[in-house]
Amino acid sequence: LYCDTYVFVRTHVSVNPAKLKSHRQRWNVRPSEMSKKTLNPIRAIVDGMKLTPNPEKPMIALSIGDPTVFGNLPTDDTVLQAVKEAIDSHKYNGYAPSVGYQKSREAVANFYSCPEAPLEGKDVILTSGCSQAIELAISVLCNPGDNILVPRPGFSLYKTLAVSMGIQVKFYNLLPEKSWEIDLQHLESLIDDKTACLIVNNPSNPCGSVFTKEHQHKILAVASRNCIPILADEIYGDMVFPGCDFQPLAPLSSDVPILSCGGLAKRWLVPGWRMGWILIHDRNYIFGTGIREGLVKLSQRILGPCTVVQGALESILNDTPPEFYQGTISFLKSNSEICFSELSTVPGLNPVMPSGAMYIMVGIEMEHFPDFQNDVEFTERLVTEQSVFCLPATAFEYPNFFRIVVTVPEEMMIEACIRIREFCARHYRPRSQDSHELDQ
Amino acid sequence: LYCDTYVFVRTHVSVNPAKLKSHRQRWNVRPSEMSKKTLNPIRAIVDGMKLTPNPEKPMIALSIGDPTVFGNLPTDDTVLQAVKEAIDSHKYNGYAPSVGYQKSREAVANFYSCPEAPLEGKDVILTSGCSQAIELAISVLCNPGDNILVPRPGFSLYKTLAVSMGIQVKFYNLLPEKSWEIDLQHLESLIDDKTACLIVNNPSNPCGSVFTKEHQHKILAVASRNCIPILADEIYGDMVFPGCDFQPLAPLSSDVPILSCGGLAKRWLVPGWRMGWILIHDRNYIFGTGIREGLVKLSQRILGPCTVVQGALESILNDTPPEFYQGTISFLKSNSEICFSELSTVPGLNPVMPSGAMYIMVGIEMEHFPDFQNDVEFTERLVTEQSVFCLPATAFEYPNFFRIVVTVPEEMMIEACIRIREFCARHYRPRSQDSHELDQ
Ligand SMILES: Cc1ncc(COP(=O)(O)O)c(C=O)c1O
Ligand SMILES: Cc1ncc(COP(=O)(O)O)c(C=O)c1O
Repeated sequence: LYCDTYVFVRTHVSVNPAKLKSHRQRWNVRPSEMSKKTLNPIRAIVDGMKLTPNPEKPMIALSIGDPTVFGNLPTDDTVLQAVKEAIDSHKYNGYAPSVGYQKSREAVANFYSCPEAPLEGKDVILTSGCSQAIELAISVLCNPGDNILVPRPGFSLYKTLAVSMGIQVKFYNLLPEKSWEIDLQHLESLIDDKTACLIVNNPSNPCGSVFTKEHQHKILAVASRNCIPILADEIYGDMVFPGCDFQPLAPLSSDVPILSCGGLAKRWLVPGWRMGWILIHDRNYIFGTGIREGLVKLSQRILGPCTVVQGALESILNDTPPEFYQGTISFLKSNSEICFSELSTVPGLNPVMPSGAMYIMVGIEMEHFPDFQNDVEFTERLVTEQSVFCLPATAFEYPNFFRIVVTVPEEMMIEACIRIREFCARHYRPRSQDSHELDQ
Repeated sequence: LYCDTYVFVRTHVSVNPAKLKSHRQRWNVRPSEMSKKTLNPIRAIVDGMKLTPNPEKPMIALSIGDPTVFGNLPTDDTVLQAVKEAIDSHKYNGYAPSVGYQKSREAVANFYSCPEAPLEGKDVILTSGCSQAIELAISVLCNPGDNILVPRPGFSLYKTLAVSMGIQVKFYNLLPEKSWEIDLQHLESLIDDKTACLIVNNPSNPCGSVFTKEHQHKILAVASRNCIPILADEIYGDMVFPGCDFQPLAPLSSDVPILSCGGLAKRWLVPGWRMGWILIHDRNYIFGTGIREGLVKLSQRILGPCTVVQGALESILNDTPPEFYQGTISFLKSNSEICFSELSTVPGLNPVMPSGAMYIMVGIEMEHFPDFQNDVEFTERLVTEQSVFCLPATAFEYPNFFRIVVTVPEEMMIEACIRIREFCARHYRPRSQDSHELDQ
């Protein structure tokens, strides 16, 4: 038997160490460095919190960036019907090209094409959610040792992905007092010759802010004079309140090449379907074929998003009625206004009114809440006492704020605000000289 | 204006080089090393071939590992119905946990659990196809500089992924004369203290071979005495011909920890749906919590597979009638037998009869085909003359063979074999001393 022979050989060989092959003598299986470096700050922070709600009050979670959890924001029937038709057609069960079906890519291109930034099917890469779009975009633009510029406060995935790939993250500041516009001087001061990419997230998670055209021109000017390509995360594109205008970045660019990332998750309210895309904007041929080919190669690792959703994409984009989008937006606006007006009269809190997306950031005047060290303790106790959970903005690298998700049903939003007011009233200390000394 | 100010500052600063920040003066956006290292040999080889079919003969592609392309192997109606019900339930549009819904994980666990290798929901990670299962498994087990052991001939994705991550690939030989069993001595000779993982693919792409229980015990013995964990790619599990038995690897293992990768693609004939999984088998707690947590972290990068397919999983696994699986298998067996018996009487060809999966490997006695340098030229000319396309096995690191996919309709299979015979007859040279000298 082979086994016996082998044992013989090993015994034999052990007499002659020169012949002994390097060989692991006992089990030692450890998770890779890469997996250890893949850190999700939201998980790390939330898992570290004692989240025991007050048994007297039903829990209200204002923390989850999933608009579907409360059932009050269903997707449109057109969207569901389109997938069922794709299934019935029996045409979408096989492998698609790893970048997606040509027809589906064209549907996305047509939907987002405009005269200033025309798109064709070849400019679109379909991905498994906007998350994979971001992963591919960072992967193709950056090498280990490079750095990327990321908004603070900002969506945590950028850092999670970059750090796991050995790419350094430099945070540029957003200015709450200027509706979360970018501190452009700070942004530019961070650029060095290892800067491989600028990430711009508009409309913003967690801020709910929407940049003006003028501000975006200035962002592009910074990128242009420093020759930095942009990853534009526009997953909340067009989710802006009436009276405000969403301006995609690419049509404003005359030279800066842009990978614009988006998907069905938010606007079409189906985040679980994992349908995202990269729009390649490169009118000046700065990406050239290299970046395009790189994206194609990277897409071949796990082969694109689910084909039945791909098959439904054309109908989803073209046939969803405008009233659906408007309905979502007016709900989000109304809830945001309720939340903003309620919380702006709470002593110690400073909510910043959003213009889009599904979030409000609320500043905490920590000096008036001596019971708590920071936003994490503040939100933790808000759960214990009031059964209201908001994400501490430390999860977005922005301490002393918390984020509220405004997709919850209106009554919940109102009730949550009442409880937050009660909580703050209980812990607020006016900051006289005396109380200040007491704090010390 | 900010722009003007800036220009002023730059002018100013240029007088004082000490203050000049390192700054890229012109565009230089290059694809990352990682994207350049993500090489798909099938694409590289096929794209390099002149594939101009003979206009007199309709093309027959025996090259595509997608069982759905000819429409003769539809999935079962249960499978389609299950997804439509998941859509109608309105329950599967939101984010699932990144490792998958608990219920869906349990459904997979129940389907594959057996007394010798019990599985629970926590032992299952749902992924975007078996490809992502393999990517996550390699990512969690290996660091750059490690090596992995990969079958030759074998599925190319293993190398594609490993090389892109800076992991070295060592090929162990499969033996065609022993029904593609592993050359265990060769396998063991490759192991060193940087060996992080052994990949075993059973049933095999491209060989269509199925390992016996005894052979798998010997593979496990090698892994066990060298303390190497196994990635078992069992995507073709249970797709074996009557009279042969598929034996999953994990129940045979007493100590070796195994990540078993699978999915819906092949057995359920829906490769485009991108539903895969990792089954974590670790009865001796060698992976411990580290590997499990690493897999969870890695899954958070792009957040699991499409939720409507996840929602359908329980019904797909439990309600698909046995006749469906049997139907697929008897078709594959019948087509394999046709192909094998046709080609075994063709002088110069040596097909190896498969026992499962959807492939046959055919050896080419190159010395009898002096018109061609290698398998790539052979298969290229088979297209030009006979409009039959088979993948040269160089794509699987195994020159002088080609691979035939046996999922095509029977008439096509027959017609293809006739054409291959004609092609070989035309180019075959009996290898007398004379002809040998002529070759020189
Ligand atoms: C700013 C931002 N980008 C990307 C994503 C990820 O989107 P997807 O679910 O399509 O991966 C999110 C999800 O919350 C987000 O907030
Ligand atoms: C051996 C093997 N493993 C894995 C895969 C990938 O499967 P999936 O389509 O589920 O990613 C394939 C596909 O051909 C394969 O042949």
